[in-house]
Amino acid sequence: MPDVDAEAAEAARERQADLTKPPGSLGRLEDLAVALAGLTGDPRPTLADPTVVVAGADHGVADRGVSAYPKSVTRAMLRNVAAGGAAVSAISEVVGAGTLVVDAGVEGAPVEAGGRIEVVDERIGPGTDDVAAGPAMSRADAVAALSAGVRTARTRLADAGIVALGEMGIGNTTVAAALTAALTGADPERITGHGTGVGEEIRAHKVAVVERALATNGLVGADGGIDRDEAEAGSAVDPVEVLRRVGGYEVGLLAGVAIGCAADRTPVVVDGVVSGAAALVAVAVAGDVRPYLLPSHLGDEPGHAVQLDALGLAPLFDHGLRLGEGSGAALALATYRAACRSHDRMATFAEAGIER
Amino acid sequence: MPDVDAEAAEAARERQADLTKPPGSLGRLEDLAVALAGLTGDPRPTLADPTVVVAGADHGVADRGVSAYPKSVTRAMLRNVAAGGAAVSAISEVVGAGTLVVDAGVEGAPVEAGGRIEVVDERIGPGTDDVAAGPAMSRADAVAALSAGVRTARTRLADAGIVALGEMGIGNTTVAAALTAALTGADPERITGHGTGVGEEIRAHKVAVVERALATNGLVGADGGIDRDEAEAGSAVDPVEVLRRVGGYEVGLLAGVAIGCAADRTPVVVDGVVSGAAALVAVAVAGDVRPYLLPSHLGDEPGHAVQLDALGLAPLFDHGLRLGEGSGAALALATYRAACRSHDRMATFAEAGIER
Repeated sequence: MPDVDAEAAEAARERQADLTKPPGSLGRLEDLAVALAGLTGDPRPTLADPTVVVAGADHGVADRGVSAYPKSVTRAMLRNVAAGGAAVSAISEVVGAGTLVVDAGVEGAPVEAGGRIEVVDERIGPGTDDVAAGPAMSRADAVAALSAGVRTARTRLADAGIVALGEMGIGNTTVAAALTAALTGADPERITGHGTGVGEEIRAHKVAVVERALATNGLVGADGGIDRDEAEAGSAVDPVEVLRRVGGYEVGLLAGVAIGCAADRTPVVVDGVVSGAAALVAVAVAGDVRPYLLPSHLGDEPGHAVQLDALGLAPLFDHGLRLGEGSGAALALATYRAACRSHDRMATFAEAGIER
Repeated sequence: MPDVDAEAAEAARERQADLTKPPGSLGRLEDLAVALAGLTGDPRPTLADPTVVVAGADHGVADRGVSAYPKSVTRAMLRNVAAGGAAVSAISEVVGAGTLVVDAGVEGAPVEAGGRIEVVDERIGPGTDDVAAGPAMSRADAVAALSAGVRTARTRLADAGIVALGEMGIGNTTVAAALTAALTGADPERITGHGTGVGEEIRAHKVAVVERALATNGLVGADGGIDRDEAEAGSAVDPVEVLRRVGGYEVGLLAGVAIGCAADRTPVVVDGVVSGAAALVAVAVAGDVRPYLLPSHLGDEPGHAVQLDALGLAPLFDHGLRLGEGSGAALALATYRAACRSHDRMATFAEAGIER
């Protein structure tokens, strides 16, 4: 991954001091503009063509009753995104962002275009296997999912100045909890939430499913599994193996998108727990990705705060969102665009003829 | 003021339940959409033509060295806004909002158009008198400022679906502190901040100026002044008199804008401490304005939290902003637009052919 461009960041810092405002008065927006200059290597980043990538896939574990919705909703909602009828579609429009819809492995045939927006076929398979009964996928498929994400970043997102991660997949907050537990050492009880809005009884069932997924896949315990303390220290975890055992196609694909974007100096905005799990995988695969990851909201799923903490990301807002799709990350694009637009377009004191 | 339309709000609540997302999963965005339906009387509010109104005026108290900048900067920055070179200009562009620039009484001749944007002449006078030496303005001028705001709302903002309050006026955080103290009973020491970024010594001086302004104008103490406890209870305060004694033209004008917008069912987004002081004046003049006031950010000036508390507004974000101009309120328009756009444009379960 390219290093952060300290020269571009310094030039941006100097420009901030010349703009027609009291120094520091734009608070975090100033810090974001400087950070984005360092990441992009452009002292006046414009974040042209901001894009929300929405990757969808199905999960075998969904058949265990961990969600309020059946698997078929993954396909229907991905088509809804492609037709412009989802929350992320509306929010993307408001913030001036495009949407890229990717079928990473929805059950059944490839997802057809929804009308307005093409659905990119990067299908790894027709949905993963049940993580509570064994590994989600083969090692080849885990690698393929990551590769598909890198390819998507390099071919479909090459012109995007900033990318927001979004997803759709019934059952994927269960998978996100298992991944988060495996990669951070957090207790499943603490990080498993109500997902689509299930009651406390189903949440308890979900915790048991996550624990079983970890145990079945040898990701806890003393007998050859990943040791919690080691996981917390970030060592001894083979992230591709974790993805293979308790991951999902869309999670792997988004991790690959993050890696591919970082390689191209494109900042990546993390959404809720599922894209947060993808971010954890990406950072475990390539630690240099971390600076390129940007926060959006603090979501309602309890694992999200654990992820953001592990990633070192301070959320921009907390609206109690728990939808996924990239909805929170899309909204955050307004903040990043505002930070860069004011940085780029404001007059300097000299230009405005104002003495300091 | 028109009552909140409970029927429109209920229709919006019902629509939210039909949209393609788990119920409640858009968190606060759902609440905002329902609230905006009730305010506008439209079950699917579109918030067309969002507009940031930036009112500028000068303050006699600025000559007491309470700011890091001289009075002349008010004119220069108002022209900068009109030329599209200010932070609020850039942020408004990103969120798809227009800017309305109003000269409410800048020192010297009327402020000329800055290039792209007209400057509306609603000048009450060439700047207020020094509030630390006596009243800021005559009673007639206080009424004229409020009336100018109502007129601005009804003539210039009639088509705006939502209005954000912004301002420019060297010395106006001092005035905002005095108004906030007079209208909420808060201690000047607690609510007077660093404004444009003055050091602790000047801040202490600013506190003394605010205390002197309150004392000189009979707004504290037992001898005929406004009693703090009564002020806190919201009684016994004649807000027009408070505006006359320790206010400013742009503050009065923005209070009038809030009143005029509320009368037209137009929601009004409050920015930082200066527009917050205007909101306090508006609510003191007409309590029915309160529901039409919406939060944006939590600003860096310590009086802002006191104002938001008094107004019953929970901020959407905290980016440590302390610029004014309407910059935070402009950014918040993205959230309101996202709430309403998703409410209006998302497919229902029936439309998307998804069984619940």
